[in-house]
Amino acid sequence: MAAPSNAEALIPQFKFEKLLNQDQAGRRIVLQGTIADQPALLLAERAAFDADESHLSNFSSSLSHIQNLGDNDIYRWYMAHSGSAQGQPPDLKINLIYPCTDQHLKKYAAQAVRHVTETADIYRHHVRPYMQAKRDQGRLNWVFNILDGRTEQQDVLFRSPHDTTPDDERYLLLPDLNWDRKTLGSLHLLALVERRDIWSLRDLKKKHVAWLRSIVSDIAANVSRLYGIDEDMLKCYVHYQPTYYHFHIHIVHVSLEAGATQVVGKALSLDNIVSQLATMAGDDEAGMDKVDLSFTLGEASELWTQVFLPLKEKRLQ
Amino acid sequence: MAAPSNAEALIPQFKFEKLLNQDQAGRRIVLQGTIADQPALLLAERAAFDADESHLSNFSSSLSHIQNLGDNDIYRWYMAHSGSAQGQPPDLKINLIYPCTDQHLKKYAAQAVRHVTETADIYRHHVRPYMQAKRDQGRLNWVFNILDGRTEQQDVLFRSPHDTTPDDERYLLLPDLNWDRKTLGSLHLLALVERRDIWSLRDLKKKHVAWLRSIVSDIAANVSRLYGIDEDMLKCYVHYQPTYYHFHIHIVHVSLEAGATQVVGKALSLDNIVSQLATMAGDDEAGMDKVDLSFTLGEASELWTQVFLPLKEKRLQ
Repeated sequence: MAAPSNAEALIPQFKFEKLLNQDQAGRRIVLQGTIADQPALLLAERAAFDADESHLSNFSSSLSHIQNLGDNDIYRWYMAHSGSAQGQPPDLKINLIYPCTDQHLKKYAAQAVRHVTETADIYRHHVRPYMQAKRDQGRLNWVFNILDGRTEQQDVLFRSPHDTTPDDERYLLLPDLNWDRKTLGSLHLLALVERRDIWSLRDLKKKHVAWLRSIVSDIAANVSRLYGIDEDMLKCYVHYQPTYYHFHIHIVHVSLEAGATQVVGKALSLDNIVSQLATMAGDDEAGMDKVDLSFTLGEASELWTQVFLPLKEKRLQ
Repeated sequence: MAAPSNAEALIPQFKFEKLLNQDQAGRRIVLQGTIADQPALLLAERAAFDADESHLSNFSSSLSHIQNLGDNDIYRWYMAHSGSAQGQPPDLKINLIYPCTDQHLKKYAAQAVRHVTETADIYRHHVRPYMQAKRDQGRLNWVFNILDGRTEQQDVLFRSPHDTTPDDERYLLLPDLNWDRKTLGSLHLLALVERRDIWSLRDLKKKHVAWLRSIVSDIAANVSRLYGIDEDMLKCYVHYQPTYYHFHIHIVHVSLEAGATQVVGKALSLDNIVSQLATMAGDDEAGMDKVDLSFTLGEASELWTQVFLPLKEKRLQ
């Protein structure tokens, strides 16, 4: 009945009872079981790759049971085993880009990130014109196509009823591209407002507080109804800087694992922005264009190379 | 010279040149190389565990080359191989808790999370008294021991010079427990203020704006000097709710991988809070105790069971 004192000998004696937990990416599992009839927890996690040159130079030839899952032009993806397999499920996902270009190398190389503060002045003089230029280049055509009903209508989960909703208050709901559209715990939707005068949170003003509160509550009710999720299991956030300059709201399940998309310095809680507007000094026209906003930028981003780096080096003011 | 058309046959032909990138946890690597003298990128990622019952029930007995790294009472940790090894480095980290208690099971089981809004009223009537109770239970003694110089002095990286810094403006810098204290890309420090009247960001007022700006700039200068990091590669954030009720600031390298600690609904940019205070309506005494703050709470947390659940169920108001 006494457990063996040799630590290594304990592991093979573990008797599995149930999968107690796993993280979203599934690279960590917590197994509940027993050893010698006493309760035990076994936590297993994928380890980091060995970054040793001698190991990496043999890495591709050491793979076994390579199975091609699909390919598109120069992109191919696979499942494979590290070392020999012996009836185990594959433990590696592999992508191959071949032949690749310099652009691919640049995209996948480690990119340094900078933390910047966009003051109201920097916004007005440099960032707002940058946003205007991006809009003028037609980068939002795909958004307008959806709003106007020309494309992706099969993906629209909800659209404000036009007969009862004023023009300025309409929005539609879409699944985010990164959501698999079925796993509730990683639900990720986007709300696109139909009005085109709000480019980002910078355009939100005190006069929008009532509308924003109603949109948040309407989104929660609709998503709750569509997916059978409690309203307090959803959260809404916006990005600054956003990827495109048409105001849109991210709606995620609270258990969606935090990743780069929800990080401080990139994501802001919509509820907190609304509360910030409500307690801000000034009249109805006062708004988020007056505050300093701090965020992170990759050194390869145009905002860094065209605005914040020149400002830092005093080539721009 | 032509590359083989068989996708599987490409992989073993990959000739390694350099490690182009890896994520912080090291579970994804990007290798630059060539196939038949043309440039190629190989991206390898640890796969999710197979959550199939039949696989999990054999999981522990399928491990090989189990190596015990250490143990402490009922906690043991290991490196191991999934399947057989053949000279590969270990690909698994294992923890064993044995014998474990019900508390362990509860801690490691998946916990549902709720999104709540703490209004100014809820803060004043329910959360502030809860914070007071936690402080009265002596939960901050470890903080006060550090501030008073009784413990952990060897860890203090910086302390405001007492002869030149007013009482209310002093702080000290410590490494965060989760930082390995050497990898600059994952640098994580804590600034503890010496004053004891600010329990959380809820106590920050317009009158503190100048002090907060000077503390942020002082922290950046000190960390930059201590570790040779550019100031714009650092960001400062605070948690709400925080883990303990004495005002403290997290300082991280911008490249520290986003995790639960930096997630929207938990972390707020300190710069943005200062800007929010600066543009807030009211006199010097106006502050963050007047705004609604939304955040997520685990269902097992006391704030959920003692405050927000009873409020939701109208057992409390």
